[in-house]
Amino acid sequence: MSKTRVGIINVTGYTGVELARLLAGHPAVQLVSVTGRSVAGKRLGEVFPHLSGLHLAIEAELGDVDFAFSALPHKEGAAVIGGLLERGLKVLDLSADFRLKDALEYPQWYGFDHPWPQLLDEAVYGLPELYRHKIAAARLVANPGCYPTAVLLALAPVAKQGLIGGDIIIDAKSGVSGAGRGLSLGSQYCEASEDTAAYALGGHRHLPEIIQELRLLKPGFAPSATFVPHLVPMTRGILATCYANLKEGQSGTELKELYREFYKDEPFVRVSAEPPHTKHTWGSNYCLVHPVFDRRTGRLVVISCIDNLVKGAAGQAIQNMNIMLGLDETAGLESAAVFP
Amino acid sequence: MSKTRVGIINVTGYTGVELARLLAGHPAVQLVSVTGRSVAGKRLGEVFPHLSGLHLAIEAELGDVDFAFSALPHKEGAAVIGGLLERGLKVLDLSADFRLKDALEYPQWYGFDHPWPQLLDEAVYGLPELYRHKIAAARLVANPGCYPTAVLLALAPVAKQGLIGGDIIIDAKSGVSGAGRGLSLGSQYCEASEDTAAYALGGHRHLPEIIQELRLLKPGFAPSATFVPHLVPMTRGILATCYANLKEGQSGTELKELYREFYKDEPFVRVSAEPPHTKHTWGSNYCLVHPVFDRRTGRLVVISCIDNLVKGAAGQAIQNMNIMLGLDETAGLESAAVFP
Amino acid sequence: MSKTRVGIINVTGYTGVELARLLAGHPAVQLVSVTGRSVAGKRLGEVFPHLSGLHLAIEAELGDVDFAFSALPHKEGAAVIGGLLERGLKVLDLSADFRLKDALEYPQWYGFDHPWPQLLDEAVYGLPELYRHKIAAARLVANPGCYPTAVLLALAPVAKQGLIGGDIIIDAKSGVSGAGRGLSLGSQYCEASEDTAAYALGGHRHLPEIIQELRLLKPGFAPSATFVPHLVPMTRGILATCYANLKEGQSGTELKELYREFYKDEPFVRVSAEPPHTKHTWGSNYCLVHPVFDRRTGRLVVISCIDNLVKGAAGQAIQNMNIMLGLDETAGLESAAVFP
Amino acid sequence: MSKTRVGIINVTGYTGVELARLLAGHPAVQLVSVTGRSVAGKRLGEVFPHLSGLHLAIEAELGDVDFAFSALPHKEGAAVIGGLLERGLKVLDLSADFRLKDALEYPQWYGFDHPWPQLLDEAVYGLPELYRHKIAAARLVANPGCYPTAVLLALAPVAKQGLIGGDIIIDAKSGVSGAGRGLSLGSQYCEASEDTAAYALGGHRHLPEIIQELRLLKPGFAPSATFVPHLVPMTRGILATCYANLKEGQSGTELKELYREFYKDEPFVRVSAEPPHTKHTWGSNYCLVHPVFDRRTGRLVVISCIDNLVKGAAGQAIQNMNIMLGLDETAGLESAAVFP
Repeated sequence: MSKTRVGIINVTGYTGVELARLLAGHPAVQLVSVTGRSVAGKRLGEVFPHLSGLHLAIEAELGDVDFAFSALPHKEGAAVIGGLLERGLKVLDLSADFRLKDALEYPQWYGFDHPWPQLLDEAVYGLPELYRHKIAAARLVANPGCYPTAVLLALAPVAKQGLIGGDIIIDAKSGVSGAGRGLSLGSQYCEASEDTAAYALGGHRHLPEIIQELRLLKPGFAPSATFVPHLVPMTRGILATCYANLKEGQSGTELKELYREFYKDEPFVRVSAEPPHTKHTWGSNYCLVHPVFDRRTGRLVVISCIDNLVKGAAGQAIQNMNIMLGLDETAGLESAAVFP
Repeated sequence: MSKTRVGIINVTGYTGVELARLLAGHPAVQLVSVTGRSVAGKRLGEVFPHLSGLHLAIEAELGDVDFAFSALPHKEGAAVIGGLLERGLKVLDLSADFRLKDALEYPQWYGFDHPWPQLLDEAVYGLPELYRHKIAAARLVANPGCYPTAVLLALAPVAKQGLIGGDIIIDAKSGVSGAGRGLSLGSQYCEASEDTAAYALGGHRHLPEIIQELRLLKPGFAPSATFVPHLVPMTRGILATCYANLKEGQSGTELKELYREFYKDEPFVRVSAEPPHTKHTWGSNYCLVHPVFDRRTGRLVVISCIDNLVKGAAGQAIQNMNIMLGLDETAGLESAAVFP
Repeated sequence: MSKTRVGIINVTGYTGVELARLLAGHPAVQLVSVTGRSVAGKRLGEVFPHLSGLHLAIEAELGDVDFAFSALPHKEGAAVIGGLLERGLKVLDLSADFRLKDALEYPQWYGFDHPWPQLLDEAVYGLPELYRHKIAAARLVANPGCYPTAVLLALAPVAKQGLIGGDIIIDAKSGVSGAGRGLSLGSQYCEASEDTAAYALGGHRHLPEIIQELRLLKPGFAPSATFVPHLVPMTRGILATCYANLKEGQSGTELKELYREFYKDEPFVRVSAEPPHTKHTWGSNYCLVHPVFDRRTGRLVVISCIDNLVKGAAGQAIQNMNIMLGLDETAGLESAAVFP
Repeated sequence: MSKTRVGIINVTGYTGVELARLLAGHPAVQLVSVTGRSVAGKRLGEVFPHLSGLHLAIEAELGDVDFAFSALPHKEGAAVIGGLLERGLKVLDLSADFRLKDALEYPQWYGFDHPWPQLLDEAVYGLPELYRHKIAAARLVANPGCYPTAVLLALAPVAKQGLIGGDIIIDAKSGVSGAGRGLSLGSQYCEASEDTAAYALGGHRHLPEIIQELRLLKPGFAPSATFVPHLVPMTRGILATCYANLKEGQSGTELKELYREFYKDEPFVRVSAEPPHTKHTWGSNYCLVHPVFDRRTGRLVVISCIDNLVKGAAGQAIQNMNIMLGLDETAGLESAAVFP
């Protein structure tokens, strides 16, 4: 069987290069084209020595492929994806450009008017645990943000069943790779190591995405979430600690069972018996979820963690691609985390 | 003027050794005796090369001092402190043994019956920003826990004025030195580096201390707090992110002003204009506090950070000692953080 | 084709657990038995959550397998391996117990008399780049130490051709996982992070192994090596910086070409154009080698790096197993490094 | 006694900001002016929150001071220092611009023609352990590089006495702050953490400085040094491992005694009994030196370590200032390292 030809637009960020690493081991698709304007002409292995085994040249434009991953930053992705669809490609967009359903959110949160608002309806939000069937039929899938992936997998089981109130607090901790490969003072080793701080207290761009998807979990659910992201000194990983009020009449006794049931057929979500460690997801596509009932306050605490570059980006993108192409959903993603 | 002679019981943990470092530079007291059973007889500089300039031997028993710091673990401290007081010493206890006012909490949270319940009333909770005058008159001061220090300094201004409801969430992130110098798998570099996880989800021992002190801030205040501590990969530092509901009629506009006013005469608390970084407190006795009003939800978020070994332990202990001895409260503690 | 049944003795150290991770993705063998005395009876996933997908129980004794990896510490391995061979198993020993050819070295360096000196001749030193054919025929292979692997791959091309003098300096930097999973103060996060130090200045146990194998590279070669290992704050990785004198008449011009030629058919050794980074080998079986001629002094500097747990331990063990079983040498080891 | 007024030109790099931190606690001088072109007009505490207690504004031009520290990059320092001297100031230059005695080295190593070659003779190389008396009389002192400081303190005792041959290897490991506060990909957390690599293999700029000063230690000494610097994942610290051949007739027995004698009156150099850890110098002005005789090869190994921002830059600069101003040499520098 000939392999599907796939390409990556903008391979030079951490998301792009992680896609290349994972696709290199994929049994059913072949990575044949990678682009990156600033370093076009170089060998991929010159820029990323760990990928020198791929023997690919970085091109200025995407070559002849059947499936495209766009790892362009927001706004830049929107500008090219319409054209790719017109060429007949299936497209997985890793930016935020097709995640929000309401075009009016883009000027507010991302500072640009959406050039293809008509595609917002068509685009499928690529969280397989919630939208597997739609993803299978889609030609354009918007890969979820890293924070929303962790948060939605933490809260979906209880939100979908209407067990929690709308008063939600999300305290999330992210590794530094979430800030991307672009240079910034805050991402320098000497500033980020041995430090912890909150950021984006005025409102993080992943908040509308979280709110939109929480709302869609159950008709009438009107969440009012406070979301405070933090930067912690690690390269990979997101840990989301979510606090919600269990509705009256609910107790915590069946919580873990409810979560286990909800995720029992999911290949990449594990309900963990112990508080999960981001390190147990390093390099893998797994999400660990751990619900706890705080007896003293009657509050629900759900902790989830992922590798932000895998389940939070490149791995989930490949999971979506697998579904879109009718392949085994776990193909190329079976590796256990690299621990320690 | 002759210097006051001070000693440290159990110098070999991270709290003890940090006390020694800070006391070495103190202008008005002299560290003359340090104990540590397992390494008694060794030079302090053999065990801690950075302190070889102190030229002290580690003794089995405390020598002739006027003031004693006990850095023994909980339960062990309680056993010896009564005797020290009887010798006429002033004592600063860094364990939890005299923090809780209700003797019945000890069996529940610390697993032992308190041997000196009559001292619980006399002991003063050593948070100078709340109890400065009592500390000045005390012969026994109980140094607050690291988490409670960060949390109470974050919430005191609003709790004391009755501005928040009792429904509080505390999401705290601590460096690994909080776990002490004892060996444990979770504290090994290969396990703790590049990792973030929550722990003590069944109830952390600092919770009753936080609740006790929050209650005391305002008559009738009945906080119901969920407290989730996390371990992040850094040696020093605690960042506490506290979530509370502002009472009706309150708005966020005067929040920063209220905090600035509350702490305007405090030498070691700074209300920061930007989200604070633990790294900006590294090695120093400062606490940075940053209140934010979340307009979207009407919720109050207060972030505070300290160096857990300084303001969260040894530095605060020396601040208390300064007050107890009538010295300048900042003596020996003026150093800025070591950054980066 | 039925898969070969393999087992791991002592899965609970970092080497054992890394073997399990890599074997989980191996296409031609099946990991059917893992032992670990202290935690026998537990599920593997309880001890190592990232391996919960393996659905294995930790046993007290090795089950029915055709091939055994022994990840026991030195001395303990020697005690059981004879018995395994008598059962007809092929054995890969990850300890030092069968690396040294001279039984008299064991009392001196490892503090015990070798119980099976007659096996020292039979055992093959498992560095495939040097001993591939012998490994293919062996029933007992001694996996090289992590430092020797890095050093020998750095120096073999020039030593084998007699291009360097015997006056060699090896300055090696290792991540903390090299110290194993046992608890020690020096491996605690608070002690090892943000620190660099040399250790074992009186003579590291890997020195006789390095000397033995350097000697065997060319008849008459009598190296006199100074080997100084250092601990640096990272979990995985060894970087060896090797200094040697090029013999008269040699120049550095053809150095890189010589290395490229020497390693041109090697699947896991890459001669890098730039100074190699340990991070580019993280989780992978690759060794990067970078020879440099220092024009100012006429000296040869060769820098090599590996992931100490993969090419320095578990990965190389699987590479050896592949050769011993007649499988594709790269089976189960093709993954690129996880970067960043 | 009125304090000497001092200023820092270019306070915004890691060296400048560390100077400000240390000067803040100096008993005999007052920091009254700090400059920084890009952020002129801001409060120092806005840019560096840990220094908000200093209450200084960052100026465009140096104010009225008696003593100036120039923390400008090389070439830029040379352009302004002549003018400062003409104003009658004493100057401590932290760049390389007045370290090398031979003006011809500047085009080769630093890429510019020296604008003040006549000052090269006058400038004193600011290593107090070697040039204390000259420093006391100087109006311009060139602060040594971080690597040369560590290396010269390691080798001076034996080189000065003619005990070693000229064939020297220096394998040095530096924390990331050595690369400065300017943005670079290699200094980003995600690239530098959990990584070790060599760099500048073609020749590091500190090499001519090391060679120059080694030569001056003993007439006729003609060192031929290979210097390989490495980057390791820590913010502060340099560990230099120096390898040299002891001249015939020498043995290692009196080595430690010789080092102890050589440094017996030095306030900031300690000959350590155990292999030194960079972490034991964190934030302090100490240099730890550890000579070892390798019996197997007859080679001398000397390991030294410093905090590159303190003894390797700002601390040494203040030590020099103390000497130039006739103050107690240790004033403002007595703090022990912050450990852990």
